[in-house]
This record gives sequence, structure tokens and C-alpha cells, in this order.
Amino acid sequence: MAGLNVALVGATGLVGRLTLSILEARDFPVGRLRLFASPRSAGKRLRFQGDEVPIEAIGDDAFEGCDLVFLSVETPLARQLAPRAVAAGAVVIDDSSAHRLEPDVPLVVPEVNAADLARHRGIIAGPNCSTAQLVVALNPLHRVNPIQRVIVDTYQAVSGTGQAALEELRVQERQVQQGEPPTARVYPHPIVQNLFPHVDSFRDDGYTREEWKMVQETRKILHRPELRMSATCVRVPVPIGHSEAVHVELERAMSPEEARELLAQAPGVRVVDDPTHNVYPMPKDAAGRDEVLVGRIRADQSHPRGLAFWVVGDNLRKGAALNAVQIAEALLPSLGSRALTVGAQAS
Amino acid sequence: MAGLNVALVGATGLVGRLTLSILEARDFPVGRLRLFASPRSAGKRLRFQGDEVPIEAIGDDAFEGCDLVFLSVETPLARQLAPRAVAAGAVVIDDSSAHRLEPDVPLVVPEVNAADLARHRGIIAGPNCSTAQLVVALNPLHRVNPIQRVIVDTYQAVSGTGQAALEELRVQERQVQQGEPPTARVYPHPIVQNLFPHVDSFRDDGYTREEWKMVQETRKILHRPELRMSATCVRVPVPIGHSEAVHVELERAMSPEEARELLAQAPGVRVVDDPTHNVYPMPKDAAGRDEVLVGRIRADQSHPRGLAFWVVGDNLRKGAALNAVQIAEALLPSLGSRALTVGAQAS
Repeated sequence: MAGLNVALVGATGLVGRLTLSILEARDFPVGRLRLFASPRSAGKRLRFQGDEVPIEAIGDDAFEGCDLVFLSVETPLARQLAPRAVAAGAVVIDDSSAHRLEPDVPLVVPEVNAADLARHRGIIAGPNCSTAQLVVALNPLHRVNPIQRVIVDTYQAVSGTGQAALEELRVQERQVQQGEPPTARVYPHPIVQNLFPHVDSFRDDGYTREEWKMVQETRKILHRPELRMSATCVRVPVPIGHSEAVHVELERAMSPEEARELLAQAPGVRVVDDPTHNVYPMPKDAAGRDEVLVGRIRADQSHPRGLAFWVVGDNLRKGAALNAVQIAEALLPSLGSRALTVGAQAS
Repeated sequence: MAGLNVALVGATGLVGRLTLSILEARDFPVGRLRLFASPRSAGKRLRFQGDEVPIEAIGDDAFEGCDLVFLSVETPLARQLAPRAVAAGAVVIDDSSAHRLEPDVPLVVPEVNAADLARHRGIIAGPNCSTAQLVVALNPLHRVNPIQRVIVDTYQAVSGTGQAALEELRVQERQVQQGEPPTARVYPHPIVQNLFPHVDSFRDDGYTREEWKMVQETRKILHRPELRMSATCVRVPVPIGHSEAVHVELERAMSPEEARELLAQAPGVRVVDDPTHNVYPMPKDAAGRDEVLVGRIRADQSHPRGLAFWVVGDNLRKGAALNAVQIAEALLPSLGSRALTVGAQAS
């Protein structure tokens, strides 16, 4: 297959760099690669498959000739750029929340709803990081025994906020070591030796936008618009790896053994569940891994049809970069033929 | 009132030292004070009300003449010592889990069930730290609108494990700063930049003993043996202050406003709930404070009679030392007259 003309916008961010390394590691068929970032990064170079690829500021012709555009930028910028890329003929994989809930934009976690890709009209969205790992763990149960209700409380790593937050945690760790008071800039409060139930901004109903997004996006991905669900999203002093305490109510009772078996066979899941030997998912083990780790699988003792479990994933990988590349891979058959057609026309 | 003859066992631990300072700060009427700890601490001294009180190893006559014994030791030792202290004529306030669920031992959080003290037979237990702050927040709602179901996921500070764990976090923080791999001794895994769903040991049903204790103790304190409840207990890299994401189902629907009002008037609670101004409970603010902080009070969108909120308390204070002293204060009328009687007999 001919290589695709790929653009990556936000190439210097945590997710952008990781997308690049995952494209390379998975041998994604890249023909021409263009890397975009803010003007202050323009002129720098990033390595890809042995080449030094220059970073460009986004100009008017940025997406010309592109087959595929990865958007890894803040939501307002994604809102501007995605339609431009589509107008230029590209398919856009958008990691921001700009388009996730638009009816004609598939919101996709390939292990769960790759079939939704078929109805895309140029833009495809990946979910919020905390949602991606959750639905990977919910879906294997949901497919055989519909989930009626979800309660999830999260333990979210600072890298979910980006590079500046990761650096802020590092600085605050040093400050605490030196006996200085930690200074907070990215977050409203110190995160070192602390945590807070505040991810994204607050809505009038008392939920954060992060909590609201988790609910809306889970409903959309699972095709369950009426799913009853409540979330508490909490930022914790962990660099990489979101953790989630999950409580579900199913249509019928399911034993922990059956759930464990379903999860063990599920794509993208690794069951890590031998607690008496101190084996359960932890952020330090999830960081750098592709699979979503699931453990502490047990009956929810407070409900006859309830299960409780513990889900940990690399928020930068399955939560963003890996999921985007997996979407691109799922699109390859259609994109590949398209690229061939375009190539044929050009020759 | 005559001062009481008080003994404090486990005086050099985190909770023991804090109990001492709280007894002093609250002007608890201490007459004679004896401090006990392991033999390696014997001979050291701790300051109390201007005196240097020697630390003793526990001998055969340790509790002779004692009116009140605070036990702040591991469960197996508490199981040995409590009956000895009772036999010597003392009332025992036991912070361990040794006697909590025994039918004739009141398990008391004074704001919630001080009346249970009346039926004590020498031993009174304080609950597990994660339970104490939870029931302080549940009870004001429960009293007017019985709670049917509780789901709670915790974020527990390392000081809950004791001094060695606090030191382990400090050492690991330094190791990470110096680029060394963190070494774990107290916990089975590094806790710095990490977290794990493992507090206390695992039971056959997949729950930890900590989770099981939370359920059993909450039921006992609220006098609701049938309360449906499930917990996930998680250790986080925070020195002091346990946090809890709580989801309750009530008998009747209750608005967040009504819940907020009930909690604002409740003893031992401080409502900290102005999220749009970044105001919510956090461990760094709860540490060193007596009140249990409650915020993020909102409808649980997944249940018509549900509420969700966020509870943070100082696990060493309300979770242990303060609660023990509050129990002692509630006992004072009976203990005081007893001490007077004893004094009269002796003279």
C-alpha cells in the first residue's frame, strides 16, 4: 500500500510526541509527514523513521494534500482546524473534546465501536482519557449483560493536563524536599502530597465538565443514551496513569469469575487480579503500556446485580495517542484506497 | 472535678503523641498520667502540661489505679491489654479493631452515637479512620432521611499506616528526586508517584479487611445492620488526610441544598463547597483540623434518590486521637464521679 500523507498538529505536546512514536513503533504507513505546532516551536525538528522532520507553524495550505490529520491540540483550536482539514480533503482524528458529541462525528474506541467509523464525514473523535479506559473495561461485560448503571470515581494523573502540569508536579516535589512551600501555577492548588476533586471546570449542576464528559461519552460509545451514570473526577499526585474505582449494575447477576473471564478475553484489556499476592493494577505499571489493566474484580456487595472493579490505564496512550493511532489503523482500508486513487490521479 | 488517672498505651506512635497533645489542648482533666510504649522507648520522656512524663514499658501493675486507659496499639496487643485494664478497674478507649464489632462493646463516634456509651462494660472502641469521617458526614442526612445504600471509594493517606509509612513516603520522595528507584518496605509497592487499591489484607470475597471494616463499622455506628454498602479503599501518596468519594441512596429524594444545610448545622462537620471558586475539601486543608470537611455536594445523576459528595478528614485526629478524646469527654460525667468516689475511698 502507498504511504499516506499524514499531518500531526500539536506535535510537540505530550500526546503529539507519543503519537509520533506510536506511529513509528506500529509501522503505520506514513508517506509524507508534516508536523505542526505553535510558532515558537517552528523550525525545531523531531525524529521519525530516521528522518529529522521540521516543525512548522500552521499556514493556510497546512492540510493541502493530506490524507490524514491527527489533531492533538486544545479544544478551541481543534474547532477551528478540523473543518479546514476536512475541506482540504483529509480525514481528521481529533483528540480534543471539540466534536465528540456532535451527532455526525463518530466517537470511537476501536475495541468497542470501530463499526461507528463507517459513518464518518471527515471528522472522527477520540474520547476523553478517563472515558477511553473505562469503556474498554465496561464493554466486554456490557455486550453480554447490559450495564444499567455506572458509578465511577477517578484518580487522574497530572499528565492528563499536559506537559506543564507534569513539570509543576516535579517542581513541587523538589520544593517539598527543600522545605519550601509548593507553588501552584497550572492548578489552583498544590498537587504534591495533596489531591483535589477538580478536573476541568465546574458546571452549574455541581459536576465538573470532566465528570459530565465521562458520562456523555460513555453513553455515546456504548450506544446507551439513557445509561444511568455518575462520576467523581479527582486529580492525584501521580505523573502517568489514570485509575478508576468502578461500580456497575448489570441487567442480570454476573459472578466475578464470569466477569474476569470475559475481561481476560477482551481486546485491549489485561486482567491483573491476584490480590492475595499483592497483584492489582497500579499507575506505575500501567504507564508506558498499551493495555487497560483491570483488577479487584468482585461482587458489589451493595447490589444483587452489582460488580465492582478497578481500572488503570496509561492516560497518554489508550487515553489519547494510542487510541488515535488505532482509529487510523481501523481507517486504513478506506484511506489506503483513497491514497492510491489520489496517487493515480496525480501521476 | 478531680483529675482522672489516665494511662496512654502506644504513647510514642503518631496517634499516641497526638492524643497527648489533644488532651492538653482541650484541658482534659488529667490527674496522674502514665505513658506506655514498647521497651525500646522506655526511659524517654514526653512533655505534658509542663511536666516531662517518663515512658514506661508495660508491667504487671500497669493499669493499677487507672480510671481511663487510651489504647493506641496494634490489634493483637489491644486484644491482650484491654481486658487487663478493665480487670484493674479502668475504662478503656481502644483505637484498634480488636473489639469494635463485639456486641457488648460500644463503637462510638460521639457526634453520631454518644448514647451508645451508656451500655459500655469497660471497653469502648473508636472506629477505623476511614469510617469515622464517613459516619460524621452520613449521619446528618441519615437522621432525617434514612440512607439505603452507600458506595464509597477512598483516597487514604500513608499516616494511616503509622510513622514508618510516613517516613517511607519521605524517603521515596527523596529517592525520586535523586533519580533513584524508590525502595518499598512498609508497603508491598512504592507509594510515591503511585497508588494502590490495597489497604489492610485481602479477604476471600475479594474485598480488603479495610473495606469490610468500613461496611461493618458504619452499619454498627448508624444502627443499620442491613445497610447496603460497598467500598474501595485506596492508598495514595498523601501524608495526612483521608478523602472519600461518597454516593448515597436515600429513602426519599433530597436536594443538594437541603443536604448542604443539614451538613452545615451538623456537629463536627464543616461544609467547604464553593467549587466555582476552587473551594472544596482537600487533604492539605484537612490535616491538623478537627472538623470533617464536606463538599462537592450534588445530586447523584444516576439515581432519583441519590446524592454524591466528597469527604476529607484528618485521619489521625477525627480518625483516631480526637475521636478517642471526644469519647473520654463524653464519659467524663460518669468517670468524674467515679474518680471522686475512688478518691474519697482512698482518703
